[in-house]
Amino acid sequence: MKLWQKEGVSTSEKIEKFTVGRDREMDLYLAPFDVLGNLAHARMLASVGLLETAELADLERELKVIYQRIEAGEFEIEDGVEDVHSQVELLLTRRLGDTGKKIHSGRSRNDQVLVDLKLFTRSRLEEIVVQTKRVFDVLQKRSEEHKNDLLPGYTHLQIAMPSSFGLWFGAYAESLVDDVALLKTAYHFANRNPLGSGAGYGSSFPLDRQETTDLLGFEGLHYNVVYAQMSRGKTEWSALTAIANLAQTLSRLAMDVCLYNSQNFAFLTLPDALTTGSSIMPHKKNPDVAELLRGKTNRLKALPMEVTLVLSNLPSGYHRDMQLLKEILMPAIEEILDCLDVTAYMLEHLQVKTNLLADAKYDLLFSVERVNELVIQGVPFRDAYKQVGKEIGEGTYTASRELHHTHLGSIGNPATAQIAELMDQQLTGFGFDRVHAAINRLLGQ
Amino acid sequence: MKLWQKEGVSTSEKIEKFTVGRDREMDLYLAPFDVLGNLAHARMLASVGLLETAELADLERELKVIYQRIEAGEFEIEDGVEDVHSQVELLLTRRLGDTGKKIHSGRSRNDQVLVDLKLFTRSRLEEIVVQTKRVFDVLQKRSEEHKNDLLPGYTHLQIAMPSSFGLWFGAYAESLVDDVALLKTAYHFANRNPLGSGAGYGSSFPLDRQETTDLLGFEGLHYNVVYAQMSRGKTEWSALTAIANLAQTLSRLAMDVCLYNSQNFAFLTLPDALTTGSSIMPHKKNPDVAELLRGKTNRLKALPMEVTLVLSNLPSGYHRDMQLLKEILMPAIEEILDCLDVTAYMLEHLQVKTNLLADAKYDLLFSVERVNELVIQGVPFRDAYKQVGKEIGEGTYTASRELHHTHLGSIGNPATAQIAELMDQQLTGFGFDRVHAAINRLLGQ
Amino acid sequence: MKLWQKEGVSTSEKIEKFTVGRDREMDLYLAPFDVLGNLAHARMLASVGLLETAELADLERELKVIYQRIEAGEFEIEDGVEDVHSQVELLLTRRLGDTGKKIHSGRSRNDQVLVDLKLFTRSRLEEIVVQTKRVFDVLQKRSEEHKNDLLPGYTHLQIAMPSSFGLWFGAYAESLVDDVALLKTAYHFANRNPLGSGAGYGSSFPLDRQETTDLLGFEGLHYNVVYAQMSRGKTEWSALTAIANLAQTLSRLAMDVCLYNSQNFAFLTLPDALTTGSSIMPHKKNPDVAELLRGKTNRLKALPMEVTLVLSNLPSGYHRDMQLLKEILMPAIEEILDCLDVTAYMLEHLQVKTNLLADAKYDLLFSVERVNELVIQGVPFRDAYKQVGKEIGEGTYTASRELHHTHLGSIGNPATAQIAELMDQQLTGFGFDRVHAAINRLLGQ
Amino acid sequence: MKLWQKEGVSTSEKIEKFTVGRDREMDLYLAPFDVLGNLAHARMLASVGLLETAELADLERELKVIYQRIEAGEFEIEDGVEDVHSQVELLLTRRLGDTGKKIHSGRSRNDQVLVDLKLFTRSRLEEIVVQTKRVFDVLQKRSEEHKNDLLPGYTHLQIAMPSSFGLWFGAYAESLVDDVALLKTAYHFANRNPLGSGAGYGSSFPLDRQETTDLLGFEGLHYNVVYAQMSRGKTEWSALTAIANLAQTLSRLAMDVCLYNSQNFAFLTLPDALTTGSSIMPHKKNPDVAELLRGKTNRLKALPMEVTLVLSNLPSGYHRDMQLLKEILMPAIEEILDCLDVTAYMLEHLQVKTNLLADAKYDLLFSVERVNELVIQGVPFRDAYKQVGKEIGEGTYTASRELHHTHLGSIGNPATAQIAELMDQQLTGFGFDRVHAAINRLLGQ
Repeated sequence: MKLWQKEGVSTSEKIEKFTVGRDREMDLYLAPFDVLGNLAHARMLASVGLLETAELADLERELKVIYQRIEAGEFEIEDGVEDVHSQVELLLTRRLGDTGKKIHSGRSRNDQVLVDLKLFTRSRLEEIVVQTKRVFDVLQKRSEEHKNDLLPGYTHLQIAMPSSFGLWFGAYAESLVDDVALLKTAYHFANRNPLGSGAGYGSSFPLDRQETTDLLGFEGLHYNVVYAQMSRGKTEWSALTAIANLAQTLSRLAMDVCLYNSQNFAFLTLPDALTTGSSIMPHKKNPDVAELLRGKTNRLKALPMEVTLVLSNLPSGYHRDMQLLKEILMPAIEEILDCLDVTAYMLEHLQVKTNLLADAKYDLLFSVERVNELVIQGVPFRDAYKQVGKEIGEGTYTASRELHHTHLGSIGNPATAQIAELMDQQLTGFGFDRVHAAINRLLGQ
Repeated sequence: MKLWQKEGVSTSEKIEKFTVGRDREMDLYLAPFDVLGNLAHARMLASVGLLETAELADLERELKVIYQRIEAGEFEIEDGVEDVHSQVELLLTRRLGDTGKKIHSGRSRNDQVLVDLKLFTRSRLEEIVVQTKRVFDVLQKRSEEHKNDLLPGYTHLQIAMPSSFGLWFGAYAESLVDDVALLKTAYHFANRNPLGSGAGYGSSFPLDRQETTDLLGFEGLHYNVVYAQMSRGKTEWSALTAIANLAQTLSRLAMDVCLYNSQNFAFLTLPDALTTGSSIMPHKKNPDVAELLRGKTNRLKALPMEVTLVLSNLPSGYHRDMQLLKEILMPAIEEILDCLDVTAYMLEHLQVKTNLLADAKYDLLFSVERVNELVIQGVPFRDAYKQVGKEIGEGTYTASRELHHTHLGSIGNPATAQIAELMDQQLTGFGFDRVHAAINRLLGQ
Repeated sequence: MKLWQKEGVSTSEKIEKFTVGRDREMDLYLAPFDVLGNLAHARMLASVGLLETAELADLERELKVIYQRIEAGEFEIEDGVEDVHSQVELLLTRRLGDTGKKIHSGRSRNDQVLVDLKLFTRSRLEEIVVQTKRVFDVLQKRSEEHKNDLLPGYTHLQIAMPSSFGLWFGAYAESLVDDVALLKTAYHFANRNPLGSGAGYGSSFPLDRQETTDLLGFEGLHYNVVYAQMSRGKTEWSALTAIANLAQTLSRLAMDVCLYNSQNFAFLTLPDALTTGSSIMPHKKNPDVAELLRGKTNRLKALPMEVTLVLSNLPSGYHRDMQLLKEILMPAIEEILDCLDVTAYMLEHLQVKTNLLADAKYDLLFSVERVNELVIQGVPFRDAYKQVGKEIGEGTYTASRELHHTHLGSIGNPATAQIAELMDQQLTGFGFDRVHAAINRLLGQ
Repeated sequence: MKLWQKEGVSTSEKIEKFTVGRDREMDLYLAPFDVLGNLAHARMLASVGLLETAELADLERELKVIYQRIEAGEFEIEDGVEDVHSQVELLLTRRLGDTGKKIHSGRSRNDQVLVDLKLFTRSRLEEIVVQTKRVFDVLQKRSEEHKNDLLPGYTHLQIAMPSSFGLWFGAYAESLVDDVALLKTAYHFANRNPLGSGAGYGSSFPLDRQETTDLLGFEGLHYNVVYAQMSRGKTEWSALTAIANLAQTLSRLAMDVCLYNSQNFAFLTLPDALTTGSSIMPHKKNPDVAELLRGKTNRLKALPMEVTLVLSNLPSGYHRDMQLLKEILMPAIEEILDCLDVTAYMLEHLQVKTNLLADAKYDLLFSVERVNELVIQGVPFRDAYKQVGKEIGEGTYTASRELHHTHLGSIGNPATAQIAELMDQQLTGFGFDRVHAAINRLLGQ
């Protein structure tokens, strides 16, 4: 039996394909960050005497050329070159000979991949935060616009008490504030330098790990080299957990939109751009975009577990399995960015219906107003509650549709300003400017 | 067919059992926090004129009596009483009549459960942090003790480069620092006041939500009442995610212990108290405690997904399903506390073996030392790497067992002090003292 | 620091508690099956000459006494006895001296636990199948009753085409047929004998594994002893996966019930026994039971993953972590049985509303009828589809509410008989009778 | 703010991209099956009078042309065409005019996608079974080859009792037998006809659903049309669960290989084709292929949960979210096929070491042999166990390395023939031949 030789593909090609997998595709995401890591590492090698000043100058010049090529979309990983790290080293060695061969001193592929991954994740988490803030702004705007447009409030999917579109939009705005908090935890974790940890056991060269930390704008370093290596997987898990949490907010919002758009609720209308027809029913305007938003965000919620399954019960030290985590992280980041974009558009363009509560179906929404009226008159709450229950049972209850909600965070007072301030507090402390400044310095920009 | 009547149990008993489930058991965890919530709510009701001063005094006195009974282990939920909230209201009404019936004004079961859950989670997360710090201290102590005791370092489960027990213990210490960061995010999320949100749509009473926020020592409030209700589930998920992350650190540590304790590694010895025998093999000393630590922490890692499954695709608004989350959260907290306790004991008592690297099997661990020696002599890294590869292939390589690791975070320099400082920075900012002070004030202690 | 001595609990008590966990509670589920395993093992030992005939007679007599005590609820695991297996051996040794000490020959705790687990799982899966069949029967009955009661059919939560309550009930009935197929796969996997595998490496005694297989009514054995041990975990996973699949059917049904019970759909009414009130809103009749059914079944769906997390990346051979799987499996079985019971009651008692489609809101449900009418008249489908789309757009479409669904499985022809036959085919092949007969023989009943 | 217009991409292009996603890529997998579904549907339409005989002949001819083009790799979905179904209909309409426009009568996109998915899944599950059988054959061959090559057996990662390579290979062979059983359950579920269910509510045309069932070689149909639609998602989940179960077997095998290949175990050697070097350590031969096999199979284990998350709590009826499941299922099938291929190669080429147990480290493996010797001499097992424990404690124990394992499934008697027979029984009952014959008839081959 010759399993392997079937289909005219050689064993080595098959194993090559199995081993490389989607690495080359994923590695393109890392390319600019690999150059940044090389720039910092080279400078540090020169500081500790492992590179001459002239060698450093050559390396910096060539690395910046490569960086520009990447920015211009002209960089590629050549056939037969295993990954982005080899490609960059190859380009340097072609141009600079022995100087190129020196750049890997005091480094392993492991800490090189790791620093690229940290820089990539840090950068993309920033982008996610920026896009989340945009969705937040739309929600806040619409919350203010519709703070007096009433909506039935449900518990147990049963009509409960009056709510408003202002509260509904605002609830998701405030949710995003907390979602940013978890993104920030992941950002801080991504923002630590693993360089110098080598294969996970450090180096006998007198490396200056603080220098690369400063050059790359990291908040600090993963001190312990064994732990630096352990942060592989944990970095991806942290980012994906924060993404999953954000996805859960978007997913619930999408579910509300699908339900409220059903003819049986009919609380809102979607723009034509967000609906599609049916192959059989000529009357259909299906909310496919909201459904796909729900489905895609639900898929994202599975990814922390996928990472966990890869890492579980592996003893400490690097294992090749970890290489697969790039294929989970990178597409997920693209997906959440797309989802945020679509959410913003949907929120901008959906139209809410007004005067919804006039329908007699919603009379009982006002039962608590009647209870509270009695309480104000001095009836103890429990007795008032019983009395109104009796009125409802006997058919003597009548709904007064006047509302007097005034407290902080409720119908008349949605606390939009306070929520905006909470978001501002969250955004402070990422330290994006400090990071940008360091990267610009490193690139001589 | 009479499914329901089988076994002589009435329909209503069966439905009662199905509905109540383990709620009464779980609710005992909430009892002290329910009293605290009542104390704050009553004071606020008096402030806004919904209770008389004398009524408040009565309520405060009786609530403190109940609190003492809970502390003394004398509180119970009587037969026929649905939950802890009803039990407390019942006790108040028995003693105070109409005054007791007034305490639920401006509140719903939903925000009452939620405030209890927030206070409970806040309190237990503090306990988890305190226990994590204890494990951290043991790891740091052992890291210092064994910083010069060498251990083979592995990548791909293959011998790689020299490591040390100091690095191994220290890696887990530093991991706990980051695990505390996620616990802190969950803590901040638990530390927000939902009171006043009622059933999720607020109240028409002029409640002062800031007052209950201050009285209960919360950092702030969930402003939007719809979002306050949405924080149900999210609070549990956040806490469980932070617990799962901590569990992953303990799980990997336990895996290392099991592996290093195997005769084929033989790097460490466990105390007899942590091993058990076999029913068939008289020679066995199995590391059952470490295995159970691994298994229990692995189970904990599943719980965020269990919460997610309950919440997924539920539209906004309360659903009874959320009540089940208590049964996931509460036992998990007990479990992680037990696991931390056992981990501390295990780390205190395991004995490491010394002089491990003398074995010829570990000769190749030193190959990078040989490469670096050549680099220092001026050979470009890539050429040095090839030369040593050739020496190994031809059998001329000899391992010099001298090590010169000096950089930050490596064998000679495990950065214990810096890691301790990182932990101190993490612990600052929980604001435990502020919370304790508020609770003491509320209880008049 | 003395973590361990805090709270006046000794180290050994804490470790004992950590190690034993809920084992003694879980082991009570295994007690009758442990006796059955002992009976078969003893007979086989006698067959191969490792027990005398008189010894066997003594053991059989005493084991049957223990079995009766278990059946009568009088069996307990004494303080200081580790588990059910030790308890049974202890009772035998107390009564029979040396004969009791012989029963563990050719066996390990591992294959003893495993055979108990197989027998327990086999028995409980049968119970689940029986209860599933009862729910199926209710669904079939209601499907027939309501085959002409029309219901709006939805796609994308948008009104789509006419459906019927008959189809709705019947869909869940047919779903249960396939759910039983997965239960059967799990049953067959549980129904294989691991005895003789010892600690996972067999025995040097000349055991007759076929004899215990026959005595216990197993379909066959796990031949390879290493694989027999590997079936630990896989047996639990298989059962839990089949349970999760069944849970998914019940969960979706519960979601439909909650939605259809909402005032905005108002398709069905729940009996008072299945609804509960609100602490604040006097008008509420919440479908708590249906929601808890949804929540509990959703939790069950998480359990295969919990098992997977415990097992993942463990090398072959027994690990103590596997002991924890009992705590996942056993409560899950109780839970699904409760859920099936409640589902049957709910389905029996919910009332469907009639004449729902008369509402003008549902006019467009009939648009495909209009298309099909044109097709029958010879218009190609695509052209007919466009023409009706145009009629709807221009407001000239009128809904003819006559329906002519005749094909197999549709409104007029719900295929109840064919579905019943499918279920019968599924039930055949479990071989319950063969198993019952073997167990009765073994117990001399 | 104009989120949407950023980057010069129009709104409609973005929504198009978001909506179509990877559908066009995924749909190429479905193309041949879509043609088969069309062939059967057209024949049935002719049978019930909705197509003329001549129209049918035209359609069949053109569909076969399309099928050949697909087989030849010349089929593509044109720009602006949404999916494979539209592409096929478009080709027919281009060639046949009105006749092409008639083929969608009595069908919806929903049941069309579903029948394609069923046919695709059925076909790929067959391929997975065939490849699994190949891996099984290698394992069986190696089990026989090495039945007398002893290997230490471990429990708790501690040396336990003697095992053999024969048992180790054979255990995984027998595991695959049970994995095929779950694949078979998924196969039967895929092998049911949903055609005629339309959008999930059937059709008012007098469709003959049995005819399409027979033409496509299905075992039966999903009778209830609402349930037929519910099988969307469930079909994918079933297939992915069976794949996950198979993946777990491969994953454990890969873990064993990685561990046994470590210098500390050194039980086996991998061929150079399956190892790779390190960028820093010149001595390394890392088992990357086995690690990637472990990692990839671990990822596959997450997928049933990902499907569950998409489906959870969706009420009955089609939702667009389900479209996303193709992106989970299809790559997973490719992945498991690759993993099986690599596993077969690895198993063929790994070399086992012999004479492993001679090492003094393994003396205690034989302690149970000593116990059994005493039992044979008449000492009750419990007493013999204690005596050997004492000998070990006192240092008087000596290991006799003679083994006498004879029972079924153990060292001397690995039951290879019986396991082969089990596999044959499993393979019978898929009914592959019946399916192939029907498809050939349909294609006129």
